[in-house]
Amino acid sequence: MNRVYLDHNATTPIRPEARDAMITAMDQIGNPSSVHAEGRAAKAMVERARAQVAEAVGCRPQEVIFTSGATEAARALQNRPNNCDVFVDATAHDALWSHLDLSNCNERPFGPGHILAMGLANSETGIVTLPPKKVEGQWPYGARRADWLLLDITQAVGRIPFSFAWSDADMAVLSAHKIGGPKGVGALILKQGLDINPLAVGGGQEMGRRSGTENVVGIAGFGAAAEAAVKDLANGVWENVAKFRNILENALEAGSKATIFVGKDQERLPNTLCFATPGWKGETQVMQMDLAGFAISAGSACSSGKVKTSRVLTAMGYDEVTAASAIRVSLGPWTTEDDVLRFADTWLEKEKKHRARAA
Amino acid sequence: MNRVYLDHNATTPIRPEARDAMITAMDQIGNPSSVHAEGRAAKAMVERARAQVAEAVGCRPQEVIFTSGATEAARALQNRPNNCDVFVDATAHDALWSHLDLSNCNERPFGPGHILAMGLANSETGIVTLPPKKVEGQWPYGARRADWLLLDITQAVGRIPFSFAWSDADMAVLSAHKIGGPKGVGALILKQGLDINPLAVGGGQEMGRRSGTENVVGIAGFGAAAEAAVKDLANGVWENVAKFRNILENALEAGSKATIFVGKDQERLPNTLCFATPGWKGETQVMQMDLAGFAISAGSACSSGKVKTSRVLTAMGYDEVTAASAIRVSLGPWTTEDDVLRFADTWLEKEKKHRARAA
Repeated sequence: MNRVYLDHNATTPIRPEARDAMITAMDQIGNPSSVHAEGRAAKAMVERARAQVAEAVGCRPQEVIFTSGATEAARALQNRPNNCDVFVDATAHDALWSHLDLSNCNERPFGPGHILAMGLANSETGIVTLPPKKVEGQWPYGARRADWLLLDITQAVGRIPFSFAWSDADMAVLSAHKIGGPKGVGALILKQGLDINPLAVGGGQEMGRRSGTENVVGIAGFGAAAEAAVKDLANGVWENVAKFRNILENALEAGSKATIFVGKDQERLPNTLCFATPGWKGETQVMQMDLAGFAISAGSACSSGKVKTSRVLTAMGYDEVTAASAIRVSLGPWTTEDDVLRFADTWLEKEKKHRARAA
Repeated sequence: MNRVYLDHNATTPIRPEARDAMITAMDQIGNPSSVHAEGRAAKAMVERARAQVAEAVGCRPQEVIFTSGATEAARALQNRPNNCDVFVDATAHDALWSHLDLSNCNERPFGPGHILAMGLANSETGIVTLPPKKVEGQWPYGARRADWLLLDITQAVGRIPFSFAWSDADMAVLSAHKIGGPKGVGALILKQGLDINPLAVGGGQEMGRRSGTENVVGIAGFGAAAEAAVKDLANGVWENVAKFRNILENALEAGSKATIFVGKDQERLPNTLCFATPGWKGETQVMQMDLAGFAISAGSACSSGKVKTSRVLTAMGYDEVTAASAIRVSLGPWTTEDDVLRFADTWLEKEKKHRARAA
C-alpha cells in the first residue's frame, strides 16, 4: 500500500509548475552577474521569479531579496548592535531564536531601534497570530512595541491570505519548499527605504544585500511555486484541506478521550493538526506511524532530527509530559479524505494498544 | 550562427550527470531533518553527495559542510575576533576580501590565531599559486605564516589535481557551478578537529555548522558534477582544452603586437586566457564580442555586473590603463578548436578597427 505523507509543514513536494521552471532554468547557462547575452538571460529569469514572489507576498519586486532559505533571511535580526533590542515571540521558530544571545538581557527597556520577531502561523500547532497593527503610524504602547516588525510567514504564505503591503511588517522571511518550491531557497522581504547590513558580503548581488552567485534553478522554481500557490489559495484548494483536517480531528476526538487537540478553538492553518496524548511519547508515535506507512512529525521537523520536547507547547503553558506527547499531522493540497481516514484508523488502533500496555 | 560561450570561469553549463541527479532529487519529497522514511531518503541523498564531493576534493565526508556557495563558505574567515589576524592574498576573489574590514589594521603582528586566505587558482588570470607547505608541522616563518590556511579552490577543482588531505590547508571553499553543478550551492571543507563558529544558526543542520533546510536538489547536482568533473580530469579532457587555449593565445599573439598576455610564463589553469590591449577598454571588447556572438568577460564576472578596473591585475603590478583593457576568455570541456579560431578571427578584426580609430 502506498505511503501517506502528512508532514507538509516540514516540507511539501515540488509542484509540477516549479519542476518545469527548474528544468527550463537548468538550460540557462549564464551567470546573472555577467553582462553578455547569456548572463542577461539568466538575470531575466531571476527577475521574473522576483516578480512572481512579490506578487504572491504582496510586496514590490525590489523588496524581495533571495536567500538560501528562511533561516538565512532571519539573519536580518542581527541588525541591532544590542541583541536585547530584539523581541522574539515565545512560540517562534528556532530560526528566529537562534540568531540571538539573550543571556544578558534581564533588562529589556523599550525604545527606538527595537525589532519584534514573530511567526504569522506556527509550524507545530498551525495557530495563526495576528501581528500588531500601527495606530496612526505608531506602534501602540505595550509589550509588542517595536520599531521594526519581522514576520516569519514561512508556514502562512499560500495557505492563508497575506499581503506584506497591507501588514505593518518591515521585514518578512519565507522559504520556497513549504509552498511547493525546492529546498534551499527563500527570501527576505525588506520594506523599501529600510536599510540593513548585508546578509552576505562579496560580489554584491541582490542589490548588495546578499552576495553570492544566485541559485538560478532554485529561484526559478520558487517563483513558479509562489505563483501556483496563491492561485491554489484563491481557487479554494485549502478549504478542502481544512475539511479533511476537521474530519481527521473529529475522528480522533471521537476515538480517544485522552487526547488534547492544541489550538482547536483558535484560528489555525487549514492543514495543521497538533494533538497530545499525555504519557505516549510523540517520537514513539512518529516511529510507529512511520512503520505503518504514515509520515508525520513530533515538534518542528526543521530541527535536524533533534528529538526534544516542544518549546512551543511549553511556552503555551502545557506541562512537559503533555508537550512531549504531541505530534503534528500536516496535510497538503493533494491529501485525500481516504488518506486521513486511514491515518485515523491506524493511529486509534495504536493508541488503544498503548493504553492496554500502560494499564 | 550559434553563439560561442567562452566564460566558463564565470559559470559553466550544468553537466548531464548533474542534471539527471537533480531531476531525480526533485522527486525526493522528504526533509532531510525528518526522522520518517521520506526524511531518511532525502538525508541519504545529501550524504551520497557529501561522499562524492569529499572524493573529488580529497577529504573525508565529515569534513564537507554544504553551503549556498563559496561566498557563504568564506564566512569561515569571520572566526577571528580580530579581522587584522586574517591575511588575504592580494589577488584573491572579492568573496574572500569582503568578509573583512581591514581599515584599522596598519599593524599586523604575526602570532597564533592567524588565518591566511588565498586562491589556489585565480579566476581572472588562471594563474595557479601553490599554497605554502608546513615544515615539520609548522608554518615556515615569514609573510605567509598562519595558524589556519583557507584555500579558495573554486576555480581549481576538477581542472588541476588537488587533494585537501595532501595540502596543508585547514579550510577550503568551493562552488558547484564552476564544475558543472548548479549555481547557489557550494561547500566549506573544514579539517577534522577544527572548531569554528557556525556559518548559520537555527535548526542545527550540517552537524550544527550550517543551519537551514538543505538544498537537496542542488546538493545532489553538486555531488554528481564533482564526481564527473574529476573523472574528466583523470581522462585528460583538460589537456585538450589547454591545447585549444594555446592555439587561441598563439593566434592572438601573432595578430596583435600591442596585446599583453597575462601569466603566459606562469603555471595557469588549462582553460583560462587573460590578455590586455592597453587603450581599448575591456568592457568595450566584451560588448563588441557579445554582439558578434561570443560570451567573455572583463575582470571577475562574479562581481554582479560591476564594471571596474581589475584589482587582481593592479595587484600584479599592471598600470590602470593596462588593467582596464584586460579581458578573460575561459574555455570549457566542450569548447572546440573551431570555437577558438572563430573567436580569434573576430577579435583580431575588431582590434584592427580599434587601432584604425585610435590612430
